Amino acid sequence: MSNKISIGILGATSYTGVELVRLLSGHGMTSIDFVSSRSSAGERFNAIFPETKNIFDAVLIRPEEAKARTVDCVFSCLPHAVSAELCLPFIKKGVSVIDLSADFRLKDPAVYELWYKHKHPAAHLLADAVYGLPEHYRKRIAKAKILANPGCYVTSVLLPLMPLFKAPGAKIEGVIVDAKSGVSGAGRALKQNTHFCEANENFFAYSIGHAHRHTPEMEQELSFAAGRKVTITFSPHLLPINRGILSTIYLKTTFSAADCGRIAAAAYAKEPFVRIREADDLPDIHDVAFTNYCDIAFTGGNGHPVIAVSALDNLIKGASGQAVQNMNIMFGFPETTGLLR
Amino acid sequence: MSNKISIGILGATSYTGVELVRLLSGHGMTSIDFVSSRSSAGERFNAIFPETKNIFDAVLIRPEEAKARTVDCVFSCLPHAVSAELCLPFIKKGVSVIDLSADFRLKDPAVYELWYKHKHPAAHLLADAVYGLPEHYRKRIAKAKILANPGCYVTSVLLPLMPLFKAPGAKIEGVIVDAKSGVSGAGRALKQNTHFCEANENFFAYSIGHAHRHTPEMEQELSFAAGRKVTITFSPHLLPINRGILSTIYLKTTFSAADCGRIAAAAYAKEPFVRIREADDLPDIHDVAFTNYCDIAFTGGNGHPVIAVSALDNLIKGASGQAVQNMNIMFGFPETTGLLR
Amino acid sequence: MSNKISIGILGATSYTGVELVRLLSGHGMTSIDFVSSRSSAGERFNAIFPETKNIFDAVLIRPEEAKARTVDCVFSCLPHAVSAELCLPFIKKGVSVIDLSADFRLKDPAVYELWYKHKHPAAHLLADAVYGLPEHYRKRIAKAKILANPGCYVTSVLLPLMPLFKAPGAKIEGVIVDAKSGVSGAGRALKQNTHFCEANENFFAYSIGHAHRHTPEMEQELSFAAGRKVTITFSPHLLPINRGILSTIYLKTTFSAADCGRIAAAAYAKEPFVRIREADDLPDIHDVAFTNYCDIAFTGGNGHPVIAVSALDNLIKGASGQAVQNMNIMFGFPETTGLLR
Amino acid sequence: MSNKISIGILGATSYTGVELVRLLSGHGMTSIDFVSSRSSAGERFNAIFPETKNIFDAVLIRPEEAKARTVDCVFSCLPHAVSAELCLPFIKKGVSVIDLSADFRLKDPAVYELWYKHKHPAAHLLADAVYGLPEHYRKRIAKAKILANPGCYVTSVLLPLMPLFKAPGAKIEGVIVDAKSGVSGAGRALKQNTHFCEANENFFAYSIGHAHRHTPEMEQELSFAAGRKVTITFSPHLLPINRGILSTIYLKTTFSAADCGRIAAAAYAKEPFVRIREADDLPDIHDVAFTNYCDIAFTGGNGHPVIAVSALDNLIKGASGQAVQNMNIMFGFPETTGLLR
Repeated sequence: MSNKISIGILGATSYTGVELVRLLSGHGMTSIDFVSSRSSAGERFNAIFPETKNIFDAVLIRPEEAKARTVDCVFSCLPHAVSAELCLPFIKKGVSVIDLSADFRLKDPAVYELWYKHKHPAAHLLADAVYGLPEHYRKRIAKAKILANPGCYVTSVLLPLMPLFKAPGAKIEGVIVDAKSGVSGAGRALKQNTHFCEANENFFAYSIGHAHRHTPEMEQELSFAAGRKVTITFSPHLLPINRGILSTIYLKTTFSAADCGRIAAAAYAKEPFVRIREADDLPDIHDVAFTNYCDIAFTGGNGHPVIAVSALDNLIKGASGQAVQNMNIMFGFPETTGLLR
Repeated sequence: MSNKISIGILGATSYTGVELVRLLSGHGMTSIDFVSSRSSAGERFNAIFPETKNIFDAVLIRPEEAKARTVDCVFSCLPHAVSAELCLPFIKKGVSVIDLSADFRLKDPAVYELWYKHKHPAAHLLADAVYGLPEHYRKRIAKAKILANPGCYVTSVLLPLMPLFKAPGAKIEGVIVDAKSGVSGAGRALKQNTHFCEANENFFAYSIGHAHRHTPEMEQELSFAAGRKVTITFSPHLLPINRGILSTIYLKTTFSAADCGRIAAAAYAKEPFVRIREADDLPDIHDVAFTNYCDIAFTGGNGHPVIAVSALDNLIKGASGQAVQNMNIMFGFPETTGLLR
Repeated sequence: MSNKISIGILGATSYTGVELVRLLSGHGMTSIDFVSSRSSAGERFNAIFPETKNIFDAVLIRPEEAKARTVDCVFSCLPHAVSAELCLPFIKKGVSVIDLSADFRLKDPAVYELWYKHKHPAAHLLADAVYGLPEHYRKRIAKAKILANPGCYVTSVLLPLMPLFKAPGAKIEGVIVDAKSGVSGAGRALKQNTHFCEANENFFAYSIGHAHRHTPEMEQELSFAAGRKVTITFSPHLLPINRGILSTIYLKTTFSAADCGRIAAAAYAKEPFVRIREADDLPDIHDVAFTNYCDIAFTGGNGHPVIAVSALDNLIKGASGQAVQNMNIMFGFPETTGLLR
Repeated sequence: MSNKISIGILGATSYTGVELVRLLSGHGMTSIDFVSSRSSAGERFNAIFPETKNIFDAVLIRPEEAKARTVDCVFSCLPHAVSAELCLPFIKKGVSVIDLSADFRLKDPAVYELWYKHKHPAAHLLADAVYGLPEHYRKRIAKAKILANPGCYVTSVLLPLMPLFKAPGAKIEGVIVDAKSGVSGAGRALKQNTHFCEANENFFAYSIGHAHRHTPEMEQELSFAAGRKVTITFSPHLLPINRGILSTIYLKTTFSAADCGRIAAAAYAKEPFVRIREADDLPDIHDVAFTNYCDIAFTGGNGHPVIAVSALDNLIKGASGQAVQNMNIMFGFPETTGLLR
């Protein structure tokens, strides 16, 4: 159909790439024009991901070839630094770019340099990039040409906390995020600690103590919401499951757990993909896996920290699903298109 | 051999029961005289747990029959309340009793009643019971006739924290324990949320916000160590694995992470079953599964909470292995007998 | 919309029930009028299956209440015997019935009685029931009022084998089916061997040696295809995963593996949900999980048995997805409606 | 103790290597003199395998350095070809060598060359090597200096089948082995299909149709037992678990299942590590995991193939445990030393 938009996917042989292919194949208003990959160029996409046989039948092209293409929207599933560089030619052509890497998320290039250990490849564009959390930036997203798709852990933290930090009279400090992610969050590249025998029947913390790169992203957005500098403690862990993040978040606050629940329920009353649950009905990963939902509940308090629990699918609401949600907003499609299964 | 001690196991058809059978079968200084079970009396133990074929060949007896037996040492794997009641006749006969339930752990019967919702069945014996954490109560354990074997989560929290609370000049507050346990911690009884399809590829918090019954036990022992009333926040979660607990513990303290590491290393220098690891080599569940070790490390601090990470096998150091360690101390066997694999 | 068909689901609190709710919620041409359950009547469906919050908001009704309703199509997820009984009132009213139980699958009531150990509750209707394997009975399905939805294992065996048995000159004997299923195939009811700790990190055979109730169903359909009595050896096993069946099928035949591949490829050339793969690209469960596809390949031969390997999702192509596919055919909807994700 | 034997382990940074270290650490009659590894020489063994902290504290040496050492017994965990080459210097020095690779298993160098695609590095020694299946070659093992430790799948097939093929009047043909192994059988090297996200919640066949290298080993030993050339069909599959093999074996034979059970029970009546189970009590992987047992049962027949089901732990009875059992025999230790837990 002529009114479909054309799509390109850079770094398509990643878990977020194949998830995009799957979501867009059932979307109805999109047509994938190209998928690219440096290491697998020339191979058929569905030879690498046979689950897409009968669904998607394209040969991966080289990034250099991709750059010559003109499409309506490019998704980048490339790693940071490489991503911004490959997005640049498309940005220059006026193509809408949705970047799933961290490259356009941090507004301050110095913070980026501190955490990512290299100079930002396109610092002059940071001001134009819109942070793609639809529940909080929907209007800006509608006009964006460069969309910074949020990190998976970050989404699981911002959705429960941003309404609280924005609430009148909010006093919140000592935020501790104890987060647990399925292994697909670590990507498709082979590493010893994600070898089946070493991740299975195992569980461990990593990059804890203000060391994980999603930390400055959470701090930036919470600071924007609060109108003051917010710092947090973030401890990620690896779960022996394929998909899903559950974050248990401890807050010292004058709000009660019930207050928090009411604030969040009000903030998200019309949101299609956020579900507020009761304190006696906490979210779990099963309920959100393979969906674009983020489930949230609040408990604790009464002399103890208030505890927010949130759950989402790291590859969908934490990555490719949220990217499609952003695309829907940017192109004027109904926001849930292709995201209700 | 005539110098072996004779053993009885009450509530033997539990995961802690079969683990005891397995550990004691390779112990060398023990001989299992009876195993009892109300629901499975008359059945062969190894028909229920075929992994013990060729290893252990006894028929389960009724608890009433068990009471008439005289042995050197009884282990109780029964649930609370039932456990104290069935241990009583053995205590009266002067049999050494190692109770894996919560019945003899809390010193204050009022606290027991508050958390377990019924009157303590043998409150007059609480003063005689010894809390079986060998690393901190070894001398008392050596003389104990009633041994209260610690809870699994509790062991994972006390081992890292007790040396800190005992340390001169300790200022520690705001303790938050974010703990994650394998499913065997929930026992062998069938429940919907431990049905394979519902626990597998899932993860969730439960009993959080000062609601889990291991909380008062942690608070009691930390208060003893600190010489003042200590309260904590305890959030257990269920991991989709069979065995193992990993606790991530956040502390507001004047100690640095390195201080904590030194204090713990000094406290446990001669302990056979506690391993202190470095901040860049955090414990994981794989390394302790199927062993009696508890691995511990400290990280964080620098304006953030200090973070203790501990790992143990909930069925071994968190239950049956620690029970055997206590038995070894009580009967004068080398403490590691039957516990190094 | 007024042109949607109305749906009732009997026995809705099963894994096939919640899968139907999920599939029909995204179908577009259906509206669920009622869900019923004897044990959970009066409860909100999404309190039992919170993954359906925001998606499906109905209260479960009693089967007696359900019988009074008039809908266009009833799906039964009830166990055998109960299922036929509860379907009868709907059949009498002329409602289209899609039965996911075994009750209408076997044409011979004596065979049913032999395997299911009770008299068939509606033997007079067996002749009217249509066996719902769309790839082989599409025309009859289009006219069916009583649809017997095939068993999960059975679908994984019939799809690779029926084209071979139908092929001119087919000489096939000694069929051995070594099948492996995820735990959801054993249902949502609690059993010791599907308790997480006992199924996880485990694997075992069950009901082997011509003992599983799917055996006569396979033999009936292969006999119809062959035009002679066919018997098979069927060995099911339980895999420690949630979803999926992989069947490894050994055949003594004059066909080569390549012949078999060609025959199947020709038979299924226009089928939307069967994918024939190459001998060096065998099916796996990952590629079909959460989809309505059945993947098939043939290998072996050369003095050895020909080996067919097939994979499908037991809850989708093996149950609820195939049921929706049958409904689409019965009501004249495009066959893939609601089944491409 | 001076009467301990000294041990060297080549290729120690493998799963079989760490399993040997663990087993020998609790053995009592052995002392590990060196562990070697080309890629990790210079690293502390317990930095790579932290589960061995407090248990084993050695630095890995280079293979060249290892060759200069003199020990009583060398275990090789190296891959084929490399293994024979590194074992040669020890063989020349008269050191007892236990080779866990395939290099000394096949008696005919031409068969080796056909399956392993290179010339045998020490074909002249094949006649001296003893095949290390204690239940069938115990006397020869006691005198062996070169011990070929059997393959994991092979052990799971030979233990149930060898007594049958040896039995007077045996008529057995059409042997089909449908075998399923945990992922540790694929080793510690990183591959895409053993990446956690790709093996987890998945299941697949590989190397089926007379293609897996364990096939000629099974055929050799069954041919020796039968006194005639035996060929089989062998289909391995990968299970999403860490450890364990379950083999379902189909036989056309004049023996009934009960005959087979009796023959095997008689053959293994005095064996410490083989357990014959009843037809209604089939083996599973849980019961043998982390042990040196092989569990076996027979069912089927009555017009269908007889079905043997066997289960073992691929790293213990299928590799390192059996290697220690062989060492015990070779050095005159009680055969179960270090192997009962």
